[in-house]
Amino acid sequence: MKTPRPRARGETQAALLTQIQVAIAGGNPRDIEKILDPLHPGEIASLLAAFPIPQREIVWRAMPRKHIGATLHKTTEAIRTKLLADTSPGILHEAMDELDVDDIADLIPGLPEELAEEFLSESDPAVLARLQADPDTAARLMHTDTLTVRPDASIADIARRLQRRPQLPPCTDQIFVTDPDNNLTGSLPIAALLRAATSQPQLLAAQVMDPAPLTFNAGASKEDIVTAFRQREPLSAAVIDDTGKLVGRITVYNVIHTIEHDADHALMAHAGLDEDEDIFAPPLQTFQNRALWLGVNLATAILASWVIGLFEETIQKLVALAVLMPIIASMGGNTGTQTMTVTVRGLGTGSVNRHNALRLLRKELAVGGFNSLLWAVTAACTALVWYGDLTLGLIMAAAMCINMISSAVAGVLIPLLFDRIGVDPALASGVALTTVTDVVGFFAVLGFAAMLI
Amino acid sequence: MKTPRPRARGETQAALLTQIQVAIAGGNPRDIEKILDPLHPGEIASLLAAFPIPQREIVWRAMPRKHIGATLHKTTEAIRTKLLADTSPGILHEAMDELDVDDIADLIPGLPEELAEEFLSESDPAVLARLQADPDTAARLMHTDTLTVRPDASIADIARRLQRRPQLPPCTDQIFVTDPDNNLTGSLPIAALLRAATSQPQLLAAQVMDPAPLTFNAGASKEDIVTAFRQREPLSAAVIDDTGKLVGRITVYNVIHTIEHDADHALMAHAGLDEDEDIFAPPLQTFQNRALWLGVNLATAILASWVIGLFEETIQKLVALAVLMPIIASMGGNTGTQTMTVTVRGLGTGSVNRHNALRLLRKELAVGGFNSLLWAVTAACTALVWYGDLTLGLIMAAAMCINMISSAVAGVLIPLLFDRIGVDPALASGVALTTVTDVVGFFAVLGFAAMLI
Repeated sequence: MKTPRPRARGETQAALLTQIQVAIAGGNPRDIEKILDPLHPGEIASLLAAFPIPQREIVWRAMPRKHIGATLHKTTEAIRTKLLADTSPGILHEAMDELDVDDIADLIPGLPEELAEEFLSESDPAVLARLQADPDTAARLMHTDTLTVRPDASIADIARRLQRRPQLPPCTDQIFVTDPDNNLTGSLPIAALLRAATSQPQLLAAQVMDPAPLTFNAGASKEDIVTAFRQREPLSAAVIDDTGKLVGRITVYNVIHTIEHDADHALMAHAGLDEDEDIFAPPLQTFQNRALWLGVNLATAILASWVIGLFEETIQKLVALAVLMPIIASMGGNTGTQTMTVTVRGLGTGSVNRHNALRLLRKELAVGGFNSLLWAVTAACTALVWYGDLTLGLIMAAAMCINMISSAVAGVLIPLLFDRIGVDPALASGVALTTVTDVVGFFAVLGFAAMLI
Repeated sequence: MKTPRPRARGETQAALLTQIQVAIAGGNPRDIEKILDPLHPGEIASLLAAFPIPQREIVWRAMPRKHIGATLHKTTEAIRTKLLADTSPGILHEAMDELDVDDIADLIPGLPEELAEEFLSESDPAVLARLQADPDTAARLMHTDTLTVRPDASIADIARRLQRRPQLPPCTDQIFVTDPDNNLTGSLPIAALLRAATSQPQLLAAQVMDPAPLTFNAGASKEDIVTAFRQREPLSAAVIDDTGKLVGRITVYNVIHTIEHDADHALMAHAGLDEDEDIFAPPLQTFQNRALWLGVNLATAILASWVIGLFEETIQKLVALAVLMPIIASMGGNTGTQTMTVTVRGLGTGSVNRHNALRLLRKELAVGGFNSLLWAVTAACTALVWYGDLTLGLIMAAAMCINMISSAVAGVLIPLLFDRIGVDPALASGVALTTVTDVVGFFAVLGFAAMLI
C-alpha cells in the first residue's frame, strides 16, 4: 500500500499533535490542511480524538475534502455524531460518494434524517439487510464487497477480469467461487491464482479452488467469529446464509475492531462507563452518563451502612470496631475483585464454562482459604498491637476468614449468575460484589463483637 | 486455507469440550486423538486452557504428534511451561522440526536447557538477534520469514520462483524488493504481481513495485506499530534496521497478539493479576501470585483505619459517624475509579497526552463538581431522615463534596504521575487511588465532626 510517510521515519502522533497545535495557534486553516493532507484518515481520526472539542472543530473545518468521508468512518460514534453536526449536507454528500457501500452503511445511523433517507433509498438490498442485522452476528460485522467467479471460469479469464479492476477491495486475499444460484462452492486464494495463472491458465476455477474455505453462517456470533480467527489466523472468511448462498465476507480488520471494542467494553464497563464515551465530551453530558452508576453505588453503600447501624450499641461499647472494620471490608473487596476479574475474563475467552465452573469455584475457594489464614493472623496481630485486646484480635481473625472466603466464592458465582441470566457480567458484577463484601465484612466484625463483648 | 470443519456448521468450543469430556471418561486415548486430529492447533490450544490440569494432561498425552509443535506455540506461556515439562525430549524435538524458525524461537525460552542450547546453536543469526531484542519493539514482534526479490528481476522470473514454493508463509500479501546489499527498495503486493504476471510479465520488479511500503524501524515501539496498523489497516509491513536493510516483517496477527495481550494486561493489572496466569494453576501457586497484592492493600487499609483512629473520641460522642462514613469513602472510590479508568485508557490509546492533560483535569473537576453537589444533597437528606440530626447532614454534605472532588482530581493525576515516572499506571493507580479516597473520605467526615460536635 502507498504510504507517503513511512512510519520508519519515527513520526509519532505526539509530534503531529504539536505541529497542529502550532498551526491552530497560527490561526491559518491552510497550515492545518497542509499537515493533514498527506496523513491517513485513520491517523486524522485519532488526532481528532486527542483534541478538546473547540480545537477539534477548528481542525475539522480545515479538513481536506478528500479525507472527510474516510475520517468520519474511522472516528468513534460519540465523536462522529458531533462532527456530522458540524458538517454541511453538501460537503457530507460529496464525502459519502467517496466511500464504499459498507462504509456508508456504517455511517447512516448518525446521518441527518433526510440524508440518511436518501442513501437508504439508493442502497442495494444486501446493504439494507446488513444494516438491520443483529449487531453481534456475522451478518452485521461482514462487508458485502466480495469478488466472485463461477466454477467453470478459466484461470486466464479470471486474471483478465482482475486486470480491469483499478484495485481489489482491502484485505482481499481470496476470490470466492459461487454457482449461478450464488451458492458458495469454494475459494481461490490470490496466491494460488497467481501460481495457476502463470503455469496452467487453462485450468478452471473448480480445479484450482479450495473447496472448504473458512465459512460462517450469517447468524454466527461475534464470539465464535473472533475465536475462529484467533485460532486459524485467516485474513478473510466467507459468510453464507442458511441456504448456503454467499452474502458477504469478514476480514481480519472486522475482527480487530470487534476485539478492540470488546476489550474497551470489559475495561470501561467495570467502572460503569460507556466504551464509546468521548473523553472530551461536555462535563454536563459526562455527568449524566456517570450519575446513574454512582446512584446505584450509593444505594449499595447505604445498605452496608444500614448493617453497621444495626450494631451501634456494640460500637458504642468498643469504638475500636469502627476503626478496624474497614480493613475487613477492604480485604474482602480486593480478594473478590481478583476472583471476579479472572472469572469474567474466563467467560469472555471461553476458558470458563459450565464444564469447569465448579472446579474453578473449588480452586478459588482454596486460594481464598490460604489467603484468609495468612491475613487473619496479620489482622489479629495488628489489632493486638494497636489495642492490646485479645478479644478484638480474635474478632478480626474470624471476620477476616469469613469475609475473604465468602468474597472469593462471590467473585466466581456472581459473574456466572449474571452470565446465565443474560446480564453483562463485566458491567454488573463489580457493584454486586462490593455489596456482598461490605455487608458480609461489616456483619462479620460487628456480629462477632456483639456476641463476645 | 483448508478447513476440514468449516465454522459454518456452528461447531463451538463448548461442543468439542463435551465430546472430549466423554472421551476422557471413556478412558481410551484413541477417542481423544480422533477428536483432536481434524482440529486446528489454535483450537486445541484454547481447549487445553479450558481443562483443569489433570484432564489437560490426559488430553495432552493423547495429542496427535503432528499438532504438538504448533499447539505448544499457540498456548499461553503459563500453560506451555507445564506442557513442556510433560513432553519427552524426543517427541519435543520431532515436534519442533515441523515449526518455522520464528515459532521455534518463541518456544526456546521455555525449553529444557540442553534442547534450547541445541536449537540456539542451529538457529541463524537473524533469529538469535530477534530473541535478544527488546520485547516491546518491532525487532522482537517481527518474523523473519520474508520473501525478497531483486529490483531487476522480471515479473515472469518472480512468478516462476513462487511456483517452486509449496506455499507462501502465512499472511504473505507482499514480496519485498531489496538490492544486493539487502536494502529495502520497495514492495510487490501479490495482487499487483498477479496483474503484471498475466499482462506484462516482461516488466521488472522495480517498474511494478510500490516504492514506499509501510515500514518500521527495528526499534519502533509496540504502541507505534499497533497505532499504524489500526490507522492504515495493512496486512503486513516491512521492518528495517538503522541502515535501511530489511530484517523482517510484521503481520496483522503479530499486531492482534499484541492488542490482545495489552488488553488482557489492562484488565488484569487493575486487580493486581498477571495476564498470563493459568486459570487452573495449583491454588498454592495462585495464592503466592496474589498474596503480595493483598498485602499492599492491607497496608493502605490500615492507613485509612489509622485516620479513623485519630477520631475515636468524636465517634464515641456520635456513633452515627461510624455508620455513615463508609458511604463517603465508597462514593469517592467510585468517582475516582471512573476518572482513573478514563485516564488510564486515554494514556494507552494516546488520546491523553501532555498537550491535553490539563484540559482533561479541568473537565473531570467539573464533572466531579456536578456529581458532588447532587450526592452531597442526597447524603445529607439520608443522614437527616435516618438520624434527624441537621449537623450530621451538614457534615455528610461537606465531606461528600470534598471527597468526590478530590477523588476526581486524584483519578486523573495519579495515572499521569505514574506514567511520567515510568510506573505502569494500569497496575499501580488503583491501590494509590483507593488510599487517597479512603483517607480523604474518613478524614473529611470525622474532621468536620470534630469541629462541629
